Amino acid sequence: MSADLKFDYKALAKEFGTPFYIYDFDMIKERFLRLKTAFKARKSQIFYAMKANSNLSLLSLLKELDSGFDCVSIGEVKRALQVGTKPYKIIFSGVGKSELELKQALEYDILYINLESEAEMYVLENVAKKLDIKARISIRVNPNVDAKTHPYISTGLNVNKFGVAFDLARKMYLYAHKSEFLEPVGIHFHIGSQLLDISPIHEASTLVAKLVRELKALNIELKFFDIGGGLGVSYEGESEPDLYAYAQGVLGSLSGLDLTIALEPGRFLVARAGELVSSVLYEKITPSKRFIITDAAMNDLLRPSLYNAYHEIVLPYNEGEKSPCDVVGGICESGDFFAKDRLLEQSKNGDILVIKNAGAYGFSMSSNYNTRPKVCELAKFKDKNDKTQIKLIRKRQSFETLVQDELECLKEG
Amino acid sequence: MSADLKFDYKALAKEFGTPFYIYDFDMIKERFLRLKTAFKARKSQIFYAMKANSNLSLLSLLKELDSGFDCVSIGEVKRALQVGTKPYKIIFSGVGKSELELKQALEYDILYINLESEAEMYVLENVAKKLDIKARISIRVNPNVDAKTHPYISTGLNVNKFGVAFDLARKMYLYAHKSEFLEPVGIHFHIGSQLLDISPIHEASTLVAKLVRELKALNIELKFFDIGGGLGVSYEGESEPDLYAYAQGVLGSLSGLDLTIALEPGRFLVARAGELVSSVLYEKITPSKRFIITDAAMNDLLRPSLYNAYHEIVLPYNEGEKSPCDVVGGICESGDFFAKDRLLEQSKNGDILVIKNAGAYGFSMSSNYNTRPKVCELAKFKDKNDKTQIKLIRKRQSFETLVQDELECLKEG
Repeated sequence: MSADLKFDYKALAKEFGTPFYIYDFDMIKERFLRLKTAFKARKSQIFYAMKANSNLSLLSLLKELDSGFDCVSIGEVKRALQVGTKPYKIIFSGVGKSELELKQALEYDILYINLESEAEMYVLENVAKKLDIKARISIRVNPNVDAKTHPYISTGLNVNKFGVAFDLARKMYLYAHKSEFLEPVGIHFHIGSQLLDISPIHEASTLVAKLVRELKALNIELKFFDIGGGLGVSYEGESEPDLYAYAQGVLGSLSGLDLTIALEPGRFLVARAGELVSSVLYEKITPSKRFIITDAAMNDLLRPSLYNAYHEIVLPYNEGEKSPCDVVGGICESGDFFAKDRLLEQSKNGDILVIKNAGAYGFSMSSNYNTRPKVCELAKFKDKNDKTQIKLIRKRQSFETLVQDELECLKEG
Repeated sequence: MSADLKFDYKALAKEFGTPFYIYDFDMIKERFLRLKTAFKARKSQIFYAMKANSNLSLLSLLKELDSGFDCVSIGEVKRALQVGTKPYKIIFSGVGKSELELKQALEYDILYINLESEAEMYVLENVAKKLDIKARISIRVNPNVDAKTHPYISTGLNVNKFGVAFDLARKMYLYAHKSEFLEPVGIHFHIGSQLLDISPIHEASTLVAKLVRELKALNIELKFFDIGGGLGVSYEGESEPDLYAYAQGVLGSLSGLDLTIALEPGRFLVARAGELVSSVLYEKITPSKRFIITDAAMNDLLRPSLYNAYHEIVLPYNEGEKSPCDVVGGICESGDFFAKDRLLEQSKNGDILVIKNAGAYGFSMSSNYNTRPKVCELAKFKDKNDKTQIKLIRKRQSFETLVQDELECLKEG
């Protein structure tokens, strides 16, 4: 199930230069449909969490498959609209929505807004009042369940900034229910990212469903049960969660409730389908280490530096004995690395080096550090004649566009 | 000596929106002149390491003060040229220069190229040969001195990817000296960043000067002694290195040698002079924590998430008792924080929150994660009438420019 991009990297490198990201659109489609199928016993809607990878052509692919979108900024909402998504297929989440963003989201008439705090509810109510409309809301509850993942991407404990505790959620639903300008339509939880053991999700689901029943008894009838995302993917050969078991666990917790299940997968759909393809610049042997220096760097893929994340790395055209080396980028800090003490064949200037499973939180976290332009992105897919097609879905950034916003100011000098 | 930006943040927030970076150009100028003065006993040239902050207007300020520029990508070289820098005031460093970058640097006829490996020397020689010119080079040596700083920014040990060991350097100088297409003109070392104790620099300087004398005995006469950067700045009230002592230590190691000292300060010139100004979105109290959520986030300033770096934070208009809180951004990961358990006054939606000492590795590492546009940048300086002026030196990024390179591809279908 690993991205099978068996084609001529060298030809692509020649045509587009390196580094570049390439995504297997067929694999994304397959994973989307598999997840959708697992939940077919129940009304459900997938809202792709585009923060994982928000390339417009990738969004367009998912939109054609009937995906909705989970957005965490008004910029992401605009991306969804840009590819023709209907507003009722868009939800807006995140702990830091500004007043202006809330106003715009209401004006676009999106499906609902996931509230993350009491303070945000009052701000939203006020914004809705000014617009004289009723804002559809969901509340992100924090079930205080340990997701057992990297602390930076664990979000379901009370010590996290996300969501609200059950007692407060109850109080907020009652308030919203009575408000002229708020309409509670959903409930949301998301306990963390990259979960390989899904039992914490089921645990959370059971707790949240209990709250839904309590609210129902108070005449607050919710329509959406938003179970977030967090499904883990295999980076190092781990077993991915069984989707059927995942769905059954959630459905089991909802007996007697008539709710549409909202899913917010991000990483699960795209991580495995992406590769960062680079060229080796130099091999360097110091008295104590062997280094492969690539033309990709931490600004292109931050996960190893930021989370110490593991990415499989291959030299697809090299043979011979493997020996330990660090794979690093050209940026002037020791934190710029992709792998440490990895076994790889010998390489030389110009060889292709592929960093796998980089479709999620790869390009989306990339920067212009060291005035390095953002790389180009390609899509790979089979056409109706079963022939592999390659399409450029983002141009490599030029120096001119990189400096445009500051050059204008310099010239006004 | 902390950035004294005593003026009306609120007025700026109203005019430019938040978040924004603001830099005190007078402080940058003062620090530049102080460093220059410390080395006035000797021929010296400052090459500002623009990776710390490469805003074109800031470069223009330094260029007017006679600064040269240390660049780590051809994009940075282009920035230097863009503000009118003469090629002989530009040097090119970094472990990952591509063939194309080397070619362009030679065509621009910059002062010299800092080589980081033997493999790079042969690539450069070949490029110079094709152009039929002699490439001026310096070699970055790795003195294997412990800089005692954060592992991600420590660069002077043998286990790092930077520079070459002395034995190899000797061999490379001999090779370059005989080459038709290489001309060794300098020697370079840089053992790490944010050094508060400068004794390791003096230790390294002594070792490297010894190598220079050996080379001289072999008829290899170098002109530039490039001591890199690495001067620490005060983030938490630490004492900054004494510049006079810094200079004396370096000068002391060079007795009997006629060399121009090249300095590559980055952080030292700009870190203290910058602030990231944001607005409070919400205060959030969970059962176990108090959070201040700001409209700035890790995509705007990555240092706390990446290095666990400390930045002073103030609520300039708030009063009353302080209590511990986490200051966090709105991005959907727990790693998006600016401070943990910091004592701050109570705040509310719309309050100004200032993150100090953010002039270096702030904007330059910023990204569009969560489709957040890059923020705007302002400069503050006194005019000849001693009146404070504010100038926009980078426009806030628009959604349109953020997606331009992918929208074009989407439209091509």
